[in-house]
Amino acid sequence: MSGEPLYIKRKTIFYDKGNIEDKEVAVVTEKPLTIYLNHNELATLICSPGGIPELTIGFLFSEGLIQQRSDIEDIRYREDEGLLWIETTNHVNRTDNFLRRHIASCCGKGRAGLYFINDARQLQPVVSDWRLSVALIIAFMAELEKRAESFRLTGGVHSAALADESQIIIHFEDIGRHNAVDKVLGYALLNEIYPHNKCLLLSGRIASEILIKAARGKIPVIISRAAPTELTLELAEELGLCIVGFARGERLNIYTHPERIILNQV
Amino acid sequence: MSGEPLYIKRKTIFYDKGNIEDKEVAVVTEKPLTIYLNHNELATLICSPGGIPELTIGFLFSEGLIQQRSDIEDIRYREDEGLLWIETTNHVNRTDNFLRRHIASCCGKGRAGLYFINDARQLQPVVSDWRLSVALIIAFMAELEKRAESFRLTGGVHSAALADESQIIIHFEDIGRHNAVDKVLGYALLNEIYPHNKCLLLSGRIASEILIKAARGKIPVIISRAAPTELTLELAEELGLCIVGFARGERLNIYTHPERIILNQV
Repeated sequence: MSGEPLYIKRKTIFYDKGNIEDKEVAVVTEKPLTIYLNHNELATLICSPGGIPELTIGFLFSEGLIQQRSDIEDIRYREDEGLLWIETTNHVNRTDNFLRRHIASCCGKGRAGLYFINDARQLQPVVSDWRLSVALIIAFMAELEKRAESFRLTGGVHSAALADESQIIIHFEDIGRHNAVDKVLGYALLNEIYPHNKCLLLSGRIASEILIKAARGKIPVIISRAAPTELTLELAEELGLCIVGFARGERLNIYTHPERIILNQV
Repeated sequence: MSGEPLYIKRKTIFYDKGNIEDKEVAVVTEKPLTIYLNHNELATLICSPGGIPELTIGFLFSEGLIQQRSDIEDIRYREDEGLLWIETTNHVNRTDNFLRRHIASCCGKGRAGLYFINDARQLQPVVSDWRLSVALIIAFMAELEKRAESFRLTGGVHSAALADESQIIIHFEDIGRHNAVDKVLGYALLNEIYPHNKCLLLSGRIASEILIKAARGKIPVIISRAAPTELTLELAEELGLCIVGFARGERLNIYTHPERIILNQV
């Protein structure tokens, strides 16, 4: 339904069983969309390009704010700014409840947009000369997979772990990628484990929110079985984090700050 | 780090290339956690059991509300009720901003808890005598996979589609599972396509929020390549939705309301 590209091409260092080559890979794009309902700011979502009016209408429908097509008076979308105004035929009197519910319960969309970017801009780059060998990455990811019993059984749980230069020291599984990372960070804080010379291991996608959590925690390297997003990589470049994606078996892609990875020591 | 089980066992109908058998499978659990920060309700998260104090502390750290262990004065957790109270040593003066940011930008956690359950309780069961054959399910999922070009290229995009008794009529891809479903529902509403005799096809997990979106849209059948959660299945039983999971190749699991699936016509 969308003709716009959902991804961009980006250079990575591709490691495959001792062979190293530059490779161009596809990275998924993400953009913030801020929705104004009847002139009030309602929500900012992080989403893929395409189908933006549909997304807005589906979001309002899912929230119970509109029921049918005739409830929509007007839609204006400014693509370059990521802003959308929607007016409804009748006053939507559930907005207060809606907002209150979102304070209390969060909305299940990516935390997003200008607020989100400001959040990232307030962070300082991660200063650390910690380095990690490819051999260790491969060993850690094999260990994480071995431990990921719930995922194998149910197909529904994400892993997050923190490892130092020899082993995995914290490991949690959760149905939510964000929760799994928060549990790891919370455990580190409670037990006064300092993450500036450790790496974060993930089973799930490296969304920009996860990147920001890691940057706040001063973790210099993130490694995942899955993919990073474009915004993650932009922020990682700036904030000094090395991003390793698609780390499966003896293969991996290094997307940013490869100086943190020791390539020739396997 | 957690000794509590992350999943329960549940009976399903397992279909494998024409063979049908009852099978017990593992289904991931999820529970709401409502956090009170210094006696004010802060957020409700949907999460897996285990590591709840760590999750809370990591969440507050990720939100920039606490920085170190000494910021925490006291934590009390009432597991049976899913309530946690945390007190900080100093007044957290960013709470207002925090709340405001969450109104505007959403928090990336599952929409959750009591509010969430109330939401589901307000919905009426889906009334529809629409039925769907296993052969069509297999064909639709093969078609969805064929179309899922972005996912193959980037490993980062979810598909959602709506199909009637002969073909896929709406299809969107998005980095967010929720967004992809909202785009499908928004397109249907805009174009006055009524989903009560159609099925929702997904590449990603059937979280309880997705179930609620489908129930609101009066869609009687949800089919996914991935897994449903326990809460999804409980709500689906009540709301009359048939849930088909792990639909890959010529295999699938029918979790709820199997009367909506024609098993013997392949």
